[in-house]
Order: sequence, then C-alpha cells, then structure tokens
Amino acid sequence: MNLILLAPGDIEHGQQACIRDPRRLRHLKEVHRARIGDSMTLGVAGGGIGRGELLALDEEEARFALSTLNTPPPPPLPVHLVLALPRPRMLARSLEHVTALGVKTITLLHSRRVEKSYWQSPELAPDKINGHLVLGLEQARDTVMPKVNLAKGFRPFVEDVLPGLLETRRGLLAHPGMPQACPRGIDEPVVLVVGPEGGFIPFEVERLLEAGCEGIHLGPRILRVETAVTALLARLF
Amino acid sequence: MNLILLAPGDIEHGQQACIRDPRRLRHLKEVHRARIGDSMTLGVAGGGIGRGELLALDEEEARFALSTLNTPPPPPLPVHLVLALPRPRMLARSLEHVTALGVKTITLLHSRRVEKSYWQSPELAPDKINGHLVLGLEQARDTVMPKVNLAKGFRPFVEDVLPGLLETRRGLLAHPGMPQACPRGIDEPVVLVVGPEGGFIPFEVERLLEAGCEGIHLGPRILRVETAVTALLARLF
Repeated sequence: MNLILLAPGDIEHGQQACIRDPRRLRHLKEVHRARIGDSMTLGVAGGGIGRGELLALDEEEARFALSTLNTPPPPPLPVHLVLALPRPRMLARSLEHVTALGVKTITLLHSRRVEKSYWQSPELAPDKINGHLVLGLEQARDTVMPKVNLAKGFRPFVEDVLPGLLETRRGLLAHPGMPQACPRGIDEPVVLVVGPEGGFIPFEVERLLEAGCEGIHLGPRILRVETAVTALLARLF
Repeated sequence: MNLILLAPGDIEHGQQACIRDPRRLRHLKEVHRARIGDSMTLGVAGGGIGRGELLALDEEEARFALSTLNTPPPPPLPVHLVLALPRPRMLARSLEHVTALGVKTITLLHSRRVEKSYWQSPELAPDKINGHLVLGLEQARDTVMPKVNLAKGFRPFVEDVLPGLLETRRGLLAHPGMPQACPRGIDEPVVLVVGPEGGFIPFEVERLLEAGCEGIHLGPRILRVETAVTALLARLF
C-alpha cells in the first residue's frame, strides 16, 4: 500500500481524513508499523495526491491531517484491454498487474476456451473486482479507478462493439504465430485483445482480424496470461 | 504444461519415454484429459523438442512413443538477472515468470530491505526452486534450466563478483527516480539488477552505480517486484 486511497466522504472539512476498514487499519499497523506523526501518501479517488500526518490510530480508525492533495496521479495508458476471461485466481492477479501498470478500461470477454463456469465465479462480483483494482491503485500510487465491462458473448462484442472502438483506436490482437512482432514504444490509443489459456480458436482469430485488428506476437514462448499481458503493455507503451 | 520435460534417464532406447511423478500424471489426466493416442510436445532437459504419442497412462506412469526430438528450444534472453530476494510467495511467482520469459542466470541478492528471515524460507531449498523453474520451462516450451545463485552478502557480491560480470555485459540498475528510461529492444548481454519491495537504500544504489551500472526507471508507477521484472525484460529485449 504505497498510497491510501480516500473516498470523497472520507475527508472532513477538507483537512482531515479518516479510514475505518479493517484491511487498511491492519496493513497500517502490521506492514507499515505506522506511528503517530508519520507522514504518508494519500490520494482522493479520481483526484489528486499529497501527504498526510497520522494523528490517531486505534482499533476503530486511522485519522490523518491532510496537506493539499494536488499532485496529479500518474498518466494512464492509452489502452482498452480486452481480455478473454481468465480462471478466477489468474483474473485476480491480472487485474492487479494491469491496474498498477495504468490500464483504465478493461473488457472481460467470453471465448470458446473460456470455461463457462468462470462466469459464475464469485471473483466476478463487483466488490471483488473492485478490491483488486484498489490493490493495483494502492501499489502504483494512482487514484483513477479502471472501468471493467463484462462481454459474455464473443460475437456480439466483436461484431457490434469492437468496430466502434476501432474507429478511433489501433486494434492489436496478441496471438501466437501472428506475423508481426509486438510493436515497441507506441503512443496512440490502442485496443489490445488477449486470448485465454490455450488461445483463441481459429474462427475467433478470423473474426478479430476481420473486425480490423492487426495480429501481433511476443515470440516463440507460450506465456501465462498474466505474464503475457504485463509483457505486452510494457513493450507497447 | 505446454511441454513435458524429460530427464535423459526418462528415455528408453531413444524411442520411448516414461514419466512417473504424481504431479504430471495428475496434470495429464485432469487438465489435459489425455487419452491414448494423443500427440503431445516433449523435450529433453537441456536438449531438443519434438512430439510423442501417448501409449499408456495409468496410476503409475505415462508412456510415450517419441519422434525425433530435434527442434531447438526457444532462444534464451542475454541477461543475468540480479534480484533482491523477494518474500517467499513473490519469489515463487517471479521465478516462474522469468524462467518462462527466457532468463537463464539468476542471482538472488541480499540487501538492507530484504528481511533476514527470507533467507531461512523453505522456498529456497534447491528442490523448491527447481520446481518453480520446471513450471516456467513447461509453460514456455523450453528445456534449458536456469542457474540460480544465492548471494547472501550485498557488498561481497557488488565488490567482488559484479565488476567481473560487467567486463563483458552492460549493467542496468532498475530503480525508481533514476534519470534514464529503461531502454527498448536492445540486443547485448546485460546484468539487470532489481531491488526489493521498498527499493535499494541510497548506499546500495551508490555502490551499484560505482560498480558500473546505469540507473534506469520504468516511469512514475511503483510496481510489485514480479510485475516490474516482467515489464523490464519485455521492454529491454
């Protein structure tokens, strides 16, 4: 937790902030070993970042005196990530990685090799997803929550939604065996599409290319989804 | 498990291979749902890769008829990764990520912000480390085991070992706030040094720069070690 993320309601009179959730109170005590008078980094959800001095810490709450929270959060990546829904544990870690890296729009997509049971996972509950996004923001000292969309039908997304996204963005389909190596250091808005473990099936690859995506690869190694997504984002931007 | 890694002793008369460990037998049954006659990818530790046909699968063993295992493994990354010893769970995942990405030489280094207890972790037992390296190789269809060295003293490593490594390699110290952005797409041998959660202390940064490392950064976001290492490798090579 490199930043304490405040909801607007956590701030009183613009000068003090108070957090009460057990997870962060425990983290402050056990990991930070925080003491009264410590200076810590805080930020307002969707807003600026600054420092606060710890005034009180007990079983119920932590209270901070705030400086002006006017440092902007780090810049986002200009990417809409479309990720075939990973298995639940991999989903959790992937959401944390990509949020820390600065992704702000994520669509979780069905595809043939996504097990249908994954869509029933408790990890998809909004609270659970939110929890992983917050962990990613806290890690990277960011304040801007990503938006996560669920696309439970492959064809409706690829036929009805994707073409509109690609009107103003470059579409990149990361898939083993595609002809073009992943581009490096680009600076334009991108829709990045990443398949499930085992990859998209040929029919799906064809539909994505038809919709206007360029096929790219990361070399001959087969990577886990969470490794591949991090590697793609690091190479692209 | 995208490749079944064979020890030379697993191959009989150069034509059949037999594996008996419960982990892989279970994986073949439960994840691959393998059936007699299935064709799978196999490779010999340190050697070539090919296909094999599953001849038998029971509680005791899986037996394959081998084709010629003569496809070379994917090329390694030209990097010696020097990583401040992460906490045990992060170590496990980091070893899998970097092995899958093609790192062949890893030094786990002590530094001030590495908790001394981490050096006592059962995760550092050679068998445990080996297990994570094998998972990385199986994932990426590689056969060449990385070498992992333990450097339990920061100064002995930086003063006595690192200068020799840097005679023939470019030294890069990844540390927040360094002046130079991480270079992209280089093709020369590198020693990549990555600090612990919380970073190297200033004294350590100075010693590493004195030893000949260039300081590089990945931008304003603070990343977890496993995310940072994957991002650095993907951007560098």
